[in-house]
Amino acid sequence: MKTRLTESFSIAHPIVSAPMAFAAGGRLAAAVSHAGGLGLIGGGYGNADWLEAEFAAAGNARVGCGFIAWKLADNPSVLDAVLDHAPAALFLSFGDPAPYAPRIHAASVPLIVQVTTLGDAQRAADAGARMIVAQGSEAGGHGERRGTITLVPEVADWLARHAPEVLLLAAGGIADGRGLAAALMLGADGVLMGSRLWASAEAQVSAAMTGAAIAATGDETIRSTVMDAARGLRWPERYTARVLKNPVTERWHDDPDALRADPAARADWAEGWAGGDPARANTFVGEATGLIHDRPPVADLMHRIVIEAEAALRRAPGWV
Amino acid sequence: MKTRLTESFSIAHPIVSAPMAFAAGGRLAAAVSHAGGLGLIGGGYGNADWLEAEFAAAGNARVGCGFIAWKLADNPSVLDAVLDHAPAALFLSFGDPAPYAPRIHAASVPLIVQVTTLGDAQRAADAGARMIVAQGSEAGGHGERRGTITLVPEVADWLARHAPEVLLLAAGGIADGRGLAAALMLGADGVLMGSRLWASAEAQVSAAMTGAAIAATGDETIRSTVMDAARGLRWPERYTARVLKNPVTERWHDDPDALRADPAARADWAEGWAGGDPARANTFVGEATGLIHDRPPVADLMHRIVIEAEAALRRAPGWV
Repeated sequence: MKTRLTESFSIAHPIVSAPMAFAAGGRLAAAVSHAGGLGLIGGGYGNADWLEAEFAAAGNARVGCGFIAWKLADNPSVLDAVLDHAPAALFLSFGDPAPYAPRIHAASVPLIVQVTTLGDAQRAADAGARMIVAQGSEAGGHGERRGTITLVPEVADWLARHAPEVLLLAAGGIADGRGLAAALMLGADGVLMGSRLWASAEAQVSAAMTGAAIAATGDETIRSTVMDAARGLRWPERYTARVLKNPVTERWHDDPDALRADPAARADWAEGWAGGDPARANTFVGEATGLIHDRPPVADLMHRIVIEAEAALRRAPGWV
Repeated sequence: MKTRLTESFSIAHPIVSAPMAFAAGGRLAAAVSHAGGLGLIGGGYGNADWLEAEFAAAGNARVGCGFIAWKLADNPSVLDAVLDHAPAALFLSFGDPAPYAPRIHAASVPLIVQVTTLGDAQRAADAGARMIVAQGSEAGGHGERRGTITLVPEVADWLARHAPEVLLLAAGGIADGRGLAAALMLGADGVLMGSRLWASAEAQVSAAMTGAAIAATGDETIRSTVMDAARGLRWPERYTARVLKNPVTERWHDDPDALRADPAARADWAEGWAGGDPARANTFVGEATGLIHDRPPVADLMHRIVIEAEAALRRAPGWV
């Protein structure tokens, strides 16, 4: 396929993998890049040792890395360590990219900024983002309220007027070729895929959590803060995380502060998380879980998505 | 344009207008049908006199009518009155269509059911819906949580396996030709448009509320229950309504019960509503408000949307 994204990054398919904390290690990122997309390691909360190991696991694949911007303030040196790897891109989400943008630009590394509102997209462009990811509420994991189908064209319109050179990706709810084709129609240059790649052979996700997601429909997710309460994380209030509903959300969703104040419940969550138990911890997956029915290798998955998107795009003039 | 919807209903464009309570009178519905779509009168809460007047206003245009299903139980005779007009379709949303489906089938009127979850889509098909509208959370007015970009393909997959003859429309966040083209890619046979037609010359909406929507970005809406608290309406808990943020949502969003118990505040809201005041009552519009910049006549609007969609669809093979 051929879009501004594939040309700008010299990749075969307009698909970037979401830098999912914990799930997106070097093996997943490398598999995505080898399959013709752009793979990103999930730097997440910024554990330097984990990142070194995952860059090693990616081998000689051309991969990028993502961080949670508000958390990077606690350990800014990890950004320098990653920039030393000359990543294919540096991806920041959930917070102000401005404090880190100069170092990323100075390293000549393309800056990708994920946003959840039009206002943040404008700030990302001001910070010199080469690519903006407009993430809708459908996405798994952390995010906000706006839906993909309105956020993408609204950001596209703003960029067309104010920063036409900035690339735009759609994220949130895109898990197959139909979603990729729809994203291009909405004005995106490509897509960022999370949940669909999270349920792949190369992702660092337990078989039980993957199985729970495969079994679920898209009706069975919820945006909540219970997982952050359980982990003692102080995420900015505007962000919640989409997970599968389970006994944890059932019990604590309406009162996360009580979970925060309950050491035994938190310890149980941590044990469930370590064991990959979808009943005792949270399965981070988006509404696209209803479109996910298997856990194939990334190469097969990417091939399937591209074939489906190409067929939809070729068929499109038939509706006129 | 040519889809299963245009062929099944013998219309020129795959666009149905949302039966928006209060806003969608006979004039709007007729304008949509005359412009090549399928127009629906917003029967809403079921005021019989208003409906008679609006069917008269629609003249000889072929229009349908929509009702809020849970509210129809209070006044089921209004359904018979509307069926006597031989509407082009009868549209039910927000509640169980099963109690009303037999009478609609007996009148040989096509039943359209709007749903907000996969589970409700399955029940709508069981009730004999000829068309299902999958409405995402982006929509203005009442709705639920799921996003358009995942709900549409998931319902499409289910229908393909279990009820392939049922048509599918996408609703929520679609306000231009890009959205229409994207909806077709996702597996819909057409779209239901609300907000975009709400901001048209023929809609029964105050100039001040339309102006507020035109000025707003998509970041400035919220799903809330304040408007139902103000009106004393007992909507089922799962449904909230998307409106523009304003002093009313700012003051009462976190405590709608206090508004319910405050006669003076409710009277002020009612006065604001009667006067079409976007600061004292609520402006019912979706996230697509950020894509809406004018208030044209419906004929111009429909023409513009179709031209844009056709261009996007013709261009699509160029991405392969």
